[in-house]
Amino acid sequence: MANKKNLNINNESSYPDHLAAIVDRNLLFYVNACKNLPAILKKSILYSIKNGGKRFRPVLCLLTVSSLGKNYGDALPAACAIEFIHTYSLIHDDLPSIDNDDFRRGKLTCHKVFGEDIAILTGDALFAEAFNIIIKYQAASPDIKIRLLEEIAVASGAEGMVAGQVIDVFYTGKKISKKMLDLMHDKKTAKLITASVRCGAIIAGADENIMEKLTVYANCIGLAFQITDDILDIEAGSEVTGKTAGKDAVQNKNTFPSMYGIKKSREIAEQKIKEACHAISGIDIKKENLVNLAEFILKRKK
Amino acid sequence: MANKKNLNINNESSYPDHLAAIVDRNLLFYVNACKNLPAILKKSILYSIKNGGKRFRPVLCLLTVSSLGKNYGDALPAACAIEFIHTYSLIHDDLPSIDNDDFRRGKLTCHKVFGEDIAILTGDALFAEAFNIIIKYQAASPDIKIRLLEEIAVASGAEGMVAGQVIDVFYTGKKISKKMLDLMHDKKTAKLITASVRCGAIIAGADENIMEKLTVYANCIGLAFQITDDILDIEAGSEVTGKTAGKDAVQNKNTFPSMYGIKKSREIAEQKIKEACHAISGIDIKKENLVNLAEFILKRKK
Repeated sequence: MANKKNLNINNESSYPDHLAAIVDRNLLFYVNACKNLPAILKKSILYSIKNGGKRFRPVLCLLTVSSLGKNYGDALPAACAIEFIHTYSLIHDDLPSIDNDDFRRGKLTCHKVFGEDIAILTGDALFAEAFNIIIKYQAASPDIKIRLLEEIAVASGAEGMVAGQVIDVFYTGKKISKKMLDLMHDKKTAKLITASVRCGAIIAGADENIMEKLTVYANCIGLAFQITDDILDIEAGSEVTGKTAGKDAVQNKNTFPSMYGIKKSREIAEQKIKEACHAISGIDIKKENLVNLAEFILKRKK
Repeated sequence: MANKKNLNINNESSYPDHLAAIVDRNLLFYVNACKNLPAILKKSILYSIKNGGKRFRPVLCLLTVSSLGKNYGDALPAACAIEFIHTYSLIHDDLPSIDNDDFRRGKLTCHKVFGEDIAILTGDALFAEAFNIIIKYQAASPDIKIRLLEEIAVASGAEGMVAGQVIDVFYTGKKISKKMLDLMHDKKTAKLITASVRCGAIIAGADENIMEKLTVYANCIGLAFQITDDILDIEAGSEVTGKTAGKDAVQNKNTFPSMYGIKKSREIAEQKIKEACHAISGIDIKKENLVNLAEFILKRKK
């Protein structure tokens, strides 16, 4: 797939695996660029980064850049930085005191292999290195770099991803309002997905109007992504998702399916994907791949 | 103390408590500037930030700025960002799976009050917000901001503080070489102390020669600081340090006292303070307060 001439993602596969493969290679480059790491830390970072994931966030970042007529390669550092942050968040979320997950994408979770102490520190390291990747490797003026760093720091910080995770653990086993459930998903998942699109748009030099429309698109697909994740947790077997199936229900997690049922949740996800595609329908960008990626969210099986 | 006319720290006290008080107030400002936090996260962040600590790192940053003839107030955002990172690192270090500490500065540790899940996430939030403070509040050009962000991301990252902590947990209960012990202390403690000085110097516009000398100064006092910390763990009672006394020995931690004994460790610390003061002896800065702060490290009782 890597030698495909264009980025059209709908001819052979519904997902741009060739971009995910490019992201994979770049992620390894950035890990190996960290010199003099303690051996155990290097191992745990590599183990966590080589996880066979879809690389949804970095791929989305790259597709945004190309939709704006720029070279997606320009955004590889920012895209990989976001995947570092996503990977760190999964390691911490899987910890025994948070979601207590033994498996992730069919592999033992970081703490099951390296111990809780190393897992916590591996997450911490990946978070710091996300910033270092942008600072050191992103070809951009200092003010553009600051804008990128701000996107990822806000999206992942106390008002973003961490807040979403805190709401999640706080309300697990408790009744949650629809408004709070929305807020939790927005912060826990949509914020970093939105940052992926916005970072791509910043690098590609999008104007304010396009940025605004792409932000709506990203928010909508971010929410849809979390809803389909929660549906898959119920419907797909462990062998498909690589996670412990049905875990949300066992843990009394608040999810869209637990609030609305599967059918209504799927309708909400479909509605969000429509809203996403509508948001970018009126702007002059090459939107086909962004539309396809949005639609992939509804079709994905893992 | 807050209305003192100058920053001379040797007339009433050996430590600039008035600067620590200014840092305290600014830390609270930055926490309260985070809007719409989940209530439990706001509480745990405030609990962790209001810890009665010396604020050694931010104070050092501010003294560096004033030693270079600039207004220390210019560096308050960067100084507070560094204290956010230090606070996050303490929360994670205290976790049951790492150092398993119940007390810190006489107060229950974050996870003892809020649970491990919230403690992990509180550390994560503080780390992200450290970057946000510099991005949003530090009055500086984008390229200076990038330099500051690089200092703190490198100092706290996979090759810095996290690596030091990984070495610490990996070698706990195992024999460590003198070289590895040095490396551990350099990364675990000295790197962030050095970043405190370097950030102050960057904000004050220090030239390369001064930066180099200040870096040597900071490395030396960083190592001395960790050595005296380890000596205090043995010699001072819990009621003085607010920590569980003698915990390092119980946990078979590798420290300077465990490697060299207390007497030799104290000599090494004294030697490092001499080297620190010597490093800045030949440069044209107002060095009195930096010398006093270095000497304070040897006198401190907690």
